[in-house]
Amino acid sequence: MRTDLCDRLGIEHPIVGFTPSEHVAAAISRAGGLGVLGAVRYNDPNDLAAALDWMDKNTDGRPYGVDVVMPMKAPTEGSIGDLSALVPPAHRDFVEKTLHELGVPPLPASEDDQDGVLGWLHSVARAHVEIALEHRPALIANALGSPPADVIAQAHDRGILVAALAGRVDHARRQVADGVDIVVAQGSEAGGHTGEIGSMVLLPEIVDAVGDQVPVLGAGGIGSGRQLVAALALGASGVWMGSTWLLTEEYAQGMPGQTAVSQALLKASSADTVRARIYSGKMARLVKSRWTEAWAAPDAPDPLPMPLQNLLVGEAHRRIAAANDPDVVAMPAGQIIGRFDHLRPVAEVIEEMVAEADATVSRLGTTRS
Amino acid sequence: MRTDLCDRLGIEHPIVGFTPSEHVAAAISRAGGLGVLGAVRYNDPNDLAAALDWMDKNTDGRPYGVDVVMPMKAPTEGSIGDLSALVPPAHRDFVEKTLHELGVPPLPASEDDQDGVLGWLHSVARAHVEIALEHRPALIANALGSPPADVIAQAHDRGILVAALAGRVDHARRQVADGVDIVVAQGSEAGGHTGEIGSMVLLPEIVDAVGDQVPVLGAGGIGSGRQLVAALALGASGVWMGSTWLLTEEYAQGMPGQTAVSQALLKASSADTVRARIYSGKMARLVKSRWTEAWAAPDAPDPLPMPLQNLLVGEAHRRIAAANDPDVVAMPAGQIIGRFDHLRPVAEVIEEMVAEADATVSRLGTTRS
Repeated sequence: MRTDLCDRLGIEHPIVGFTPSEHVAAAISRAGGLGVLGAVRYNDPNDLAAALDWMDKNTDGRPYGVDVVMPMKAPTEGSIGDLSALVPPAHRDFVEKTLHELGVPPLPASEDDQDGVLGWLHSVARAHVEIALEHRPALIANALGSPPADVIAQAHDRGILVAALAGRVDHARRQVADGVDIVVAQGSEAGGHTGEIGSMVLLPEIVDAVGDQVPVLGAGGIGSGRQLVAALALGASGVWMGSTWLLTEEYAQGMPGQTAVSQALLKASSADTVRARIYSGKMARLVKSRWTEAWAAPDAPDPLPMPLQNLLVGEAHRRIAAANDPDVVAMPAGQIIGRFDHLRPVAEVIEEMVAEADATVSRLGTTRS
Repeated sequence: MRTDLCDRLGIEHPIVGFTPSEHVAAAISRAGGLGVLGAVRYNDPNDLAAALDWMDKNTDGRPYGVDVVMPMKAPTEGSIGDLSALVPPAHRDFVEKTLHELGVPPLPASEDDQDGVLGWLHSVARAHVEIALEHRPALIANALGSPPADVIAQAHDRGILVAALAGRVDHARRQVADGVDIVVAQGSEAGGHTGEIGSMVLLPEIVDAVGDQVPVLGAGGIGSGRQLVAALALGASGVWMGSTWLLTEEYAQGMPGQTAVSQALLKASSADTVRARIYSGKMARLVKSRWTEAWAAPDAPDPLPMPLQNLLVGEAHRRIAAANDPDVVAMPAGQIIGRFDHLRPVAEVIEEMVAEADATVSRLGTTRS
C-alpha cells in the first residue's frame, strides 16, 4: 500500500501514528510508518530532548515526527502562579469533592509539587519546538492548527515538513495559506481535541478544498486496513492514527501507571466516549468514566478555558493515575477504542492493517460494473 | 458498481434513498437505486395509499420501499387530546414566545386545525404498515429499529424484506435476532434520528457483528461516489442516503413550501447542523437555524419525550413552514448538506455517484504495494 505521501515522508506505508510514548513512536517508524511523538506531556523540555535522543538511536535511521500544542498567536500568559489565581475556588471545591466521592486519595506529599501539564502553555510549546528543531524530525505537527509563522519558517529552513490538524474546512484553507505542508483532516470520531464533523463528511470536503495543494491525511476512527482504504477512497494520501496505539504492548510497557487506563480502554465500547471541555478547556473526546460522568452532572460547573482548566485538573489527573482505578480515568480516546479487546505489538498492528488494506482494494475491484 | 445487495433487491446500483417525497423516491427507483418513501408525514393513511398508488404507476415496474417510524413495543397511547394535556404550559409558552421573537406569524384560522405529525404515534405507524402491505414494496424499513414481530412476519409472508436503522452495534445484533433482513448502520453524521458514533467506526463494527448474516448498508454522511466506495471498503453492501435528496429538483418541486428549507440547506456548511431532541423528543440532527439556537439558549426548557415533543412543536413547524424564512427552519438534515450548492435532478445525482465510484475503485487499484 503506497501513496505519494510515502515518497514525501520517506516511509513505507501511508500510516502516521501520533502517540505520547517514544517507545510506540519509534516502533511505528521502525515498522514502516511515521511515528509522531506528542510533546505536550513533557513539562521539562530536557525530558523531551532525552526522548528524542533516544528515538534518534532507536528508529533505524527511519523518519519520525514531533507533535506540539501551540496556538498560532501567543496568548497573554502569566506565570503559573498568576494563572492559578484565576481558577475560581468553587471549581477547586468541585474537583476536591468529586475526587473524594470517587475514592481517589490525595497524592503523597513528595509527589504533590507539580503544576499540571504545562505543554498547553505557549512558552513551553515554544521550548518543545526548539528541542525538536535540534533533532532530526521529518515532520512537526501542531494539534491547534497553524503554528506561528516563524516556527513554520524555521522548520522549512531545516527541510522539516509542517502538519496541522483541522476539524473544519475553513481551518484547513487557512492552514494551507499559512504555509502548512500536510493537513490532517480530523473527524469527530477522534480522541483528544476534536470537532463535530464526522470523518466521512470532513475528509473529502478538505481534500476538495486543499488537496490540490497539499497531501491530506484522514484522522478520526481509523484503526484497520478497511478504514485506511476508506480514507484513501475519500481522497486522503494516508491516515493519522492516535487511539489505536494506546492499546499496544509498547504503550503499556512504556508509559508507567497506565494499567487502569488500559483496562478502561479495553472494556470500552465505541459508545463509551464523550466530547467535553473538561480535559484542557477545549472540546476533547475522552473515554467515559465516573470522572467524566461527574462533570456531566447537573451540579457540575462549566469547564474553564484553556489553559486554566488543565491547571485546575492537573493534580486531579495525577491523583486519578495514582489511584489506578479502571472506573475512574481521565483519558483522551477516540471511538475506535471499542474495536480492540487485547494489546498487540505495534508492528503487528501495522502489518495487519496493510494486509487488510491490500485485501480490501482487491475486494473492491470486483464491484465494478 | 454492483454488490450482492443489487441481486437481493433487484436494483442496478447499491444505492438506497430515503425521502419523504414520492417524486424523489420514484426517481431514485427509476434511476436504478431503491427509493424508500418516508410514511411518517402522512397523518391520513389514505394519503399514503394515494402516494404509493402513484409510485406503483411511476416506477417503471422497478422496486421501491416504504419507511415507517415504529417502536418494537407499542407504547401506552391515549388520544391526541389526552396526550396534549401532558404538554406542560411552560413549554407551550416558550414555543409561543420564541415564534413571536423570530417573527413567525400565527397560521390563518383555516389551517390551524391539525395535530402535528401523527406518524410518531404507534397506531398511525401501524396504519402505514397496513397500507404498505397492500402495495408492492420490496422493502419496509423502520427508523426506530426492529418493528413488532407480527409486522416482520407479515412482510416476510409477502416476500417483503425488512430493514432497520441501527446507531450502535448492540442494536444491530438485536435486530438480526428479531428477524430483520437488512441493517442500516447509521453514523452520527446522518440527518434526523441519529446516534453518536461516526460512520467510520460504526459501519465496520456492525459489519463484523452481523455482516455474515445480513447485508449492512452504510448511512450517515454519504453523498458521493467516493463515500459510496468508502462504505463498501468498510464492508457495506451498499449505502442508505437521505439528506442528499433534499437538494434535488424533484424534492423542491414535489414538496410544497420548501423554498426556505432549500435555501437554508444550500447555504449551510457541514458545520451547520446540530443534534438535539427538539424535533421529536429523540436525538435528531437538524440544520442550524434561529429556531434550533433558541432551543439551545440557557432559558430554553428541556425537550419533552416522544411523542409529546412533536405534539408541542407540530403547529410551530407548520407556522415556520408557512413563514418561509430561510433563517428560521425546523428541518432534519445531515452533515453532507454542506457539500451541495445547487439543486440537481435525482438521476444526475445517481449517475455522478456511480461514475465517481467506478473511478475511485480504479484509483485505489494503483495504491497496492
